[in-house]
Amino acid sequence: MSVFTTVSNDELVPFLKNYSLGQLVDIKGIAAGVTNTNYFVTTTHGKYVLTLFETLQASELPYYVDLMVHLGQHGIAIAAPIANLRGEYIDELNGKPTLLVPCLPGAVTDSPNVAQCGQVGEMLAQMHLAAASYSGQMSNPRGPQWWSATAHDMYPFMSEADAALLHAEVQLQSQHKFDQFQMNLPKGVIHADLFRDNALMNGDQVGGFIDFYYACNDILLYDLAITLNDWCVLENGDIDAERARAMLAGYQSVRPLTDDEVADWPIMLRAAALRFWVSRLLDFHKPAAGEMTFAKDPGHFQRVIQHHQARTDFWL
Amino acid sequence: MSVFTTVSNDELVPFLKNYSLGQLVDIKGIAAGVTNTNYFVTTTHGKYVLTLFETLQASELPYYVDLMVHLGQHGIAIAAPIANLRGEYIDELNGKPTLLVPCLPGAVTDSPNVAQCGQVGEMLAQMHLAAASYSGQMSNPRGPQWWSATAHDMYPFMSEADAALLHAEVQLQSQHKFDQFQMNLPKGVIHADLFRDNALMNGDQVGGFIDFYYACNDILLYDLAITLNDWCVLENGDIDAERARAMLAGYQSVRPLTDDEVADWPIMLRAAALRFWVSRLLDFHKPAAGEMTFAKDPGHFQRVIQHHQARTDFWL
Repeated sequence: MSVFTTVSNDELVPFLKNYSLGQLVDIKGIAAGVTNTNYFVTTTHGKYVLTLFETLQASELPYYVDLMVHLGQHGIAIAAPIANLRGEYIDELNGKPTLLVPCLPGAVTDSPNVAQCGQVGEMLAQMHLAAASYSGQMSNPRGPQWWSATAHDMYPFMSEADAALLHAEVQLQSQHKFDQFQMNLPKGVIHADLFRDNALMNGDQVGGFIDFYYACNDILLYDLAITLNDWCVLENGDIDAERARAMLAGYQSVRPLTDDEVADWPIMLRAAALRFWVSRLLDFHKPAAGEMTFAKDPGHFQRVIQHHQARTDFWL
Repeated sequence: MSVFTTVSNDELVPFLKNYSLGQLVDIKGIAAGVTNTNYFVTTTHGKYVLTLFETLQASELPYYVDLMVHLGQHGIAIAAPIANLRGEYIDELNGKPTLLVPCLPGAVTDSPNVAQCGQVGEMLAQMHLAAASYSGQMSNPRGPQWWSATAHDMYPFMSEADAALLHAEVQLQSQHKFDQFQMNLPKGVIHADLFRDNALMNGDQVGGFIDFYYACNDILLYDLAITLNDWCVLENGDIDAERARAMLAGYQSVRPLTDDEVADWPIMLRAAALRFWVSRLLDFHKPAAGEMTFAKDPGHFQRVIQHHQARTDFWL
């Protein structure tokens, strides 16, 4: 359950008077999500999603919200923020910063098919190109510095063999100078968390990408690696070659990879898996106080990395 | 048929590469409309409408296009313009300025029901409020000066009785100082041409208002009068009281009329009818060279005015 801040009809009616969205019909809490409060809001005009931010402050939101506005203006499948009558996207309700967006078509899929992976790859590339004209800047708070420091804190919780593997991966990435200021790879705005649960699929089409609150400026190829590691994965942590080829082909139909990107693709897949292995270890061994996270198995991304280590064909 | 400038697949494919809208699937000319060329463009992402402007220059478009962007950002039911990869809404194809918008749900209705008239009134009021924060300025090119001068040119084509009636209406409006700088009525951005064929209805809901190319800064009540004169009209030029009451109630549920507006409502209904009586007379007696207008019966708005003259109940 992810309604941390309750909103009543009586509170929402005056709030909505500051918008151009018709009269309130119904409000319903959304169970998904672990960080923010989300409600489906139905009005005489349509169906919307109201988010109350539980951890991000209003002052921290413009990078993400303006990015969503920008992407929406370019026709990228996302839920474009709706402005209130003062022309502001970020409003306030019950002491929390809020955002209203239209409800997107489609639903989350746990087992994407080949066509869906192709469409997600294509939309991701379109998003990377459309965001090139976005002026906001945000460094990645989950970059190499973060995972190196966090891995160091995790070793005591791990078996000697697992800790050695993690340490070797951190070292490997460090040797490859995985740093956005050092690598010769195209950079831009990345979603950085485009897992299956952050996209609504409408049949084989992308209904919309959601949850841009890890978005940042980083290496584009890293975003593709994060996405592929989740969308094309098998239960054992190996990658389904057919889905991977479809996602890469979809992506490259819009933005063909450079020679440097092709060369760094195998190491980038491991970097993307390393970032989530480390964050899952952290959530598992040191859950934040009061956080309602259902800690996910850290071993999953360890297995993803081990399969990448053994791989010789990277579907390009 | 309103495809004045043809567009081939081979021309559209490179044009679309500058957008984030997927791969071209199909293109089809749209028969409706008499001024611009419009195509339905289907891509792997969805269905869009491509407009090639045949008379407006690119330099004349920003007021209208930025208004549409603004209204879209506020959740008003319109087709929000889509930016290309350079961040521009107005592009160019085959020598004509272009605009790409998503295809709206719904269809034009010739015989709106009471509920639809209520929804149109409500959305119009929301549009007026949302546009209050729009900074663009455009005077009405079809205002009192225009209709006085144009009526003068039409008298020679008319019967003595009709010309006398038209002259009396022009005089009446002039005596009531119908001038946006003189009247004590709320002003703002108006659509100015919200006839039934400029709205797509999705069931009883407004799918979207279209064709903002007469939009300007003028008296808000005038926009409501223009809209009601068309949506609530009977074949004989009289107004259907039930639809009129629904439209007024819908409008006032969002923006209640001021005392001044209530007082001026009867004269405003006649001003709105006068403007279209005059423009239809012009189209009928002096069609612009090469214009593919199907001249509409000018007598219709003469009858609308005559019914307004005889009316005592204005549904408020």
